[in-house]
Amino acid sequence: MSINTFGRLFRVTTWGESHGPALGAVVDGCPPGIALCEADIQPWLDRRRPGRSRYTTQRREPDRVEILSGTYEGRTTGTPISLMIRNTDQRSKDYSDIARKFRPGHADITYHLKYGLRDPRGGGRSSARETAARVAAGAVARKALAALAPAVEIFGYMVQMGEDAIDRDRFDKAEIDRNPFWSPDAAAAARWAEALDALRKSGNSVGAVIEVVARGVPPGLGAPVYGKLDTDIAAAMMSINAVKGVEIGAGMGAAALTGTENADEIAMGKDGPVFSSNHAGGILGGISTGQDIVCRFAVKPTSSILTPRRTITVEGEETEIVTRGRHDPCVGIRAVPVGEAMMACVILDHLLLHRGQVGDGLAGRIGGWPG
Amino acid sequence: MSINTFGRLFRVTTWGESHGPALGAVVDGCPPGIALCEADIQPWLDRRRPGRSRYTTQRREPDRVEILSGTYEGRTTGTPISLMIRNTDQRSKDYSDIARKFRPGHADITYHLKYGLRDPRGGGRSSARETAARVAAGAVARKALAALAPAVEIFGYMVQMGEDAIDRDRFDKAEIDRNPFWSPDAAAAARWAEALDALRKSGNSVGAVIEVVARGVPPGLGAPVYGKLDTDIAAAMMSINAVKGVEIGAGMGAAALTGTENADEIAMGKDGPVFSSNHAGGILGGISTGQDIVCRFAVKPTSSILTPRRTITVEGEETEIVTRGRHDPCVGIRAVPVGEAMMACVILDHLLLHRGQVGDGLAGRIGGWPG
Amino acid sequence: MSINTFGRLFRVTTWGESHGPALGAVVDGCPPGIALCEADIQPWLDRRRPGRSRYTTQRREPDRVEILSGTYEGRTTGTPISLMIRNTDQRSKDYSDIARKFRPGHADITYHLKYGLRDPRGGGRSSARETAARVAAGAVARKALAALAPAVEIFGYMVQMGEDAIDRDRFDKAEIDRNPFWSPDAAAAARWAEALDALRKSGNSVGAVIEVVARGVPPGLGAPVYGKLDTDIAAAMMSINAVKGVEIGAGMGAAALTGTENADEIAMGKDGPVFSSNHAGGILGGISTGQDIVCRFAVKPTSSILTPRRTITVEGEETEIVTRGRHDPCVGIRAVPVGEAMMACVILDHLLLHRGQVGDGLAGRIGGWPG
Amino acid sequence: MSINTFGRLFRVTTWGESHGPALGAVVDGCPPGIALCEADIQPWLDRRRPGRSRYTTQRREPDRVEILSGTYEGRTTGTPISLMIRNTDQRSKDYSDIARKFRPGHADITYHLKYGLRDPRGGGRSSARETAARVAAGAVARKALAALAPAVEIFGYMVQMGEDAIDRDRFDKAEIDRNPFWSPDAAAAARWAEALDALRKSGNSVGAVIEVVARGVPPGLGAPVYGKLDTDIAAAMMSINAVKGVEIGAGMGAAALTGTENADEIAMGKDGPVFSSNHAGGILGGISTGQDIVCRFAVKPTSSILTPRRTITVEGEETEIVTRGRHDPCVGIRAVPVGEAMMACVILDHLLLHRGQVGDGLAGRIGGWPG
Repeated sequence: MSINTFGRLFRVTTWGESHGPALGAVVDGCPPGIALCEADIQPWLDRRRPGRSRYTTQRREPDRVEILSGTYEGRTTGTPISLMIRNTDQRSKDYSDIARKFRPGHADITYHLKYGLRDPRGGGRSSARETAARVAAGAVARKALAALAPAVEIFGYMVQMGEDAIDRDRFDKAEIDRNPFWSPDAAAAARWAEALDALRKSGNSVGAVIEVVARGVPPGLGAPVYGKLDTDIAAAMMSINAVKGVEIGAGMGAAALTGTENADEIAMGKDGPVFSSNHAGGILGGISTGQDIVCRFAVKPTSSILTPRRTITVEGEETEIVTRGRHDPCVGIRAVPVGEAMMACVILDHLLLHRGQVGDGLAGRIGGWPG
Repeated sequence: MSINTFGRLFRVTTWGESHGPALGAVVDGCPPGIALCEADIQPWLDRRRPGRSRYTTQRREPDRVEILSGTYEGRTTGTPISLMIRNTDQRSKDYSDIARKFRPGHADITYHLKYGLRDPRGGGRSSARETAARVAAGAVARKALAALAPAVEIFGYMVQMGEDAIDRDRFDKAEIDRNPFWSPDAAAAARWAEALDALRKSGNSVGAVIEVVARGVPPGLGAPVYGKLDTDIAAAMMSINAVKGVEIGAGMGAAALTGTENADEIAMGKDGPVFSSNHAGGILGGISTGQDIVCRFAVKPTSSILTPRRTITVEGEETEIVTRGRHDPCVGIRAVPVGEAMMACVILDHLLLHRGQVGDGLAGRIGGWPG
Repeated sequence: MSINTFGRLFRVTTWGESHGPALGAVVDGCPPGIALCEADIQPWLDRRRPGRSRYTTQRREPDRVEILSGTYEGRTTGTPISLMIRNTDQRSKDYSDIARKFRPGHADITYHLKYGLRDPRGGGRSSARETAARVAAGAVARKALAALAPAVEIFGYMVQMGEDAIDRDRFDKAEIDRNPFWSPDAAAAARWAEALDALRKSGNSVGAVIEVVARGVPPGLGAPVYGKLDTDIAAAMMSINAVKGVEIGAGMGAAALTGTENADEIAMGKDGPVFSSNHAGGILGGISTGQDIVCRFAVKPTSSILTPRRTITVEGEETEIVTRGRHDPCVGIRAVPVGEAMMACVILDHLLLHRGQVGDGLAGRIGGWPG
Repeated sequence: MSINTFGRLFRVTTWGESHGPALGAVVDGCPPGIALCEADIQPWLDRRRPGRSRYTTQRREPDRVEILSGTYEGRTTGTPISLMIRNTDQRSKDYSDIARKFRPGHADITYHLKYGLRDPRGGGRSSARETAARVAAGAVARKALAALAPAVEIFGYMVQMGEDAIDRDRFDKAEIDRNPFWSPDAAAAARWAEALDALRKSGNSVGAVIEVVARGVPPGLGAPVYGKLDTDIAAAMMSINAVKGVEIGAGMGAAALTGTENADEIAMGKDGPVFSSNHAGGILGGISTGQDIVCRFAVKPTSSILTPRRTITVEGEETEIVTRGRHDPCVGIRAVPVGEAMMACVILDHLLLHRGQVGDGLAGRIGGWPG
């Protein structure tokens, strides 16, 4: 990952501030010949868009994407795809106070110290608004994956809000799109709705855990020992605003397991190896096994809250701050489509990397498989 | 991170297999004029070396490092530093069985599928032995940090083995080097010793959680939004063998916090900002705050165990495997110096990156600080 | 250089096709605090703009640049600077013929073979129009250089058109901006004007040699052995459309010299080393000496000419083609500001790289210099 | 190109000084399953080895390569290939004088200024000895090319020594290996032998022009607009010690051509497009056409000569220097295998890159070709 670029062969460079004229992404290295128009990208942006429910910020942004380059007659040409989203609802007056005071938990103080100046309007570059550009890029990655590896399916959902986790026995994939929390457990969604209403009223916020699954990923993707698939997924997720932890498969819980519990045993199915469990999260030695790739990440609670917090000013004076503005009481909700987008970009990138070094398909076989 | 390279300006390329003639690292981009000789590196390798206690693999490797280039009269010249460690104790006979069978939880099956062939002796490139090269590179990074940012101190320790965590109230930094588990809690170390003796006898293994702290890191290091300091730390730690989760500060636990609990309040001290707590783990918006940088990672239990596990052969036949050889019952122990080394490399790299873009020190000030 | 990105710390990603809605550049890694507004960039674009004289294409493009991100209150913030230029004069009808036929000397055939499709309007991505984005990025680099290394001066000029070279004895730096050829020799400019009028009338075109000088570059920039300053300059220039050769200092002519002729002898001046000559072109071992950095590159004649040329169609049929449209009879003229821009980007990039690895200034001294 | 690394997917990192214990290369990203042993590499090193004829330095180095990693049972495993060459003939006494004085035309002064210290023995890292590592890496690239694109043939030769160029009408490919100058023109070789004997006796040296051809390269390799094939070739060649100019196809001579002369006309042959000429040097728009890729580079005369040259000391005193030691009177001779090696690495790298983004073969067709 370069400063504002991620990816190796499928490279995404994002730019833009929360309250500047626009934000965007340049997607480089996309395979040619992929059908792509704005209508392919817009639905994914709509999922992330603020103001979809009362549980997300009430900033009103249509988040309309424009494709400025890289396609011809509805297909990618292999040249860079420039995606732009205009900012329209920029109420700069909401942010006048924070130009002088550093909001605890925000990047205000570190940007100020590092760069000497920062765009204080809406958090500038450190705003979660930057993730719109990632979602747009992820939509391009999904289209390329659909063409190159049609079996791949990527979906994310919330598995915990605050201390309240879903019940895995109630997991219903179809439920995810039916509630505003992307929860696969309808009962949890109902509880979260109630809890978040209370938090919102009290001007507080709460953290969340998101899980993203990539299903149907062919085995063989990844590149030891530093370009591992899990390394890149960890970097991709940790780069999302407010993320404080990333797990693959058993994750932090792997520490509590014994070797006999943890080792996913292997049998032979008609479509390749079959594993008795998936503590590995679909990745062994940095390379995909063909199982579901399972990643979780924790999003901290929004630091923009109505409770006064002690802080200091640019002049070094101690003071208090209340962050009004329009904020997400649980920014984790809107992190779901962002996590999906990052996963899509990483999987595509490794598909291209694998094809570059090894060629299409697998160099090895197990018995007569693959045929 | 490139395939076998990590870092941006301070770049480390490692090579070598567990049972090849040697392994090593090429360290590129080191600042010139740093005092460096083999004796500066060896102690760190000795910390990671197998066979230090009965709790680590009994493979006997002296792990003697040779500097083949990049220094002149005991100082770095700014050119690539080639570090080589000869392999001496290569009992290949221990590994003859696994050339045909895939060990569950190991990279055997994925390497085979991806590349079509692999070096089965001791896990080849996927062996934890590769981490010796990281530790050697980390020792170089420590020397450069000592010259450029002498206040920086990097230390790691084990905070959990299996389900048994340390008691934070008993944290004693001086204790870390006194027990074979790098535990800061002597009581925990005693319990772990007992538990591990039992596990070892039963041929089983167990996971662990390691914490690595970088203290005295100047504020301003890191580069949003994809070259974040926490992004690079997450990638660095996730790239270590057997790591399944990475946390910064509050980590996965951040999900359970509310905004009022999580926001580290800021006051002004005589040496810069002072924070009331460190849920952020020393990083806001991807940039260091000056607080301790705190990272944790979970290491899964060694998959090489004596309990028979079901698996398949290269020919696709179902079978069982017992991994004899000499293995670590808790590979997390030896991951401590590896995590420290990765942290040292990342911190130095970001120090150079910051100097490149912004120059020495901070572009911003708070009141009259820094003077 | 990545596919559509160049630079290491100062990284420029360009996007856009000749006849798409817009083209642009994302400039990442710029130091913060640099004064920058659109008026700083526009004059450099105006130098490159088509239609300045009758010797360049009559396409009418205002080439107005918009800064979409990365500045706040007129200063760079250290975040990516997104620069956009709208395309306005897109007469697509001029290019209808070439969608089926491959123009000899153009990228039509290779883009078609590689990608399977291409944007044929105006050459799409392979159009020299892409260089507008480079010039905009170069203007940002110049502003940063002005702040960080104010002694640096970068200027280019044409030294040969067709077979007709300037007389070095008539070199007058002030003359460069006075004629439409950026010629430092007024007499050559007059001859070229006449020759080009004739060529234009006959529908033919001609090549040129451009020289770009970077004066006042501090010694010590560059990084052996693959990140050499001359390596990066060569890559930067060769990446410009139609460039077929790059020289540093004595260039290809160095082959004809003997060692006694070639070695630039060194004396000691009050401001550092003084060299008796500059066959090295200001670079030794890939690192700047403090002398003028001198680079030349050859631009081939525009392949778009009115003389019918034999070619084939997408269907493989043999045919003829005449490229009408609006073209530069000597595209080398407009390559001058492009070469300057690339030089500015490379010099700034290496200034940042040097500062990253070594720090401000030089690690070494000669006697008491620098003081 | 990173500081001591070049390539994108096929990445080569070299290390080592002229008079250190060893030098080497780590080759990362090589496709797996390629037959590779030391005997595949040694012949190429032997071509570059000093002391092959009286026209090259009399330093005696066997240049025996050892493969330390990355192969198993004679095949590449896809993991990094570490290649090491021991230095044996290190007569450090020859170089004692130059620790204090800067040799004109050498990197002594720039390394000293940049880094503050340098290894003066034999030029340290700036010695042409570093190119042995490139040749070893190039041999690996050749083996991979032989497996992936068996039609590719790469060969280099000298076309000019001093002012004396070959006669293209006498070009005989078979002659190249028959004389110590890699000259395709036997008459030129005879003249060069005589001239070089005289130069050697007078303690002088001379420059040369090398041409490297890659034949049989499939069309479609390269990646506009900054990852062009010619951009990467230019960078690769310019990074070789003493190179001052690089040309593709018509090269600097393209400036003197008109559009009608320069445009290579296209006809349709049974095996794809056929061009009437090759001014383009096999590359259009940065992408290979399928014609011969033709690159030339100029090597300056060795700066190590017996004629006294004026220079300064580390203390800034003016003095004279005579470079005794053992040097090549025409270092261009030994640059031939180096240029070939760099070409092999670049072609393979772009083959992998193309396969990554586009897949095997071409996305486009012309009529029914390729079938």
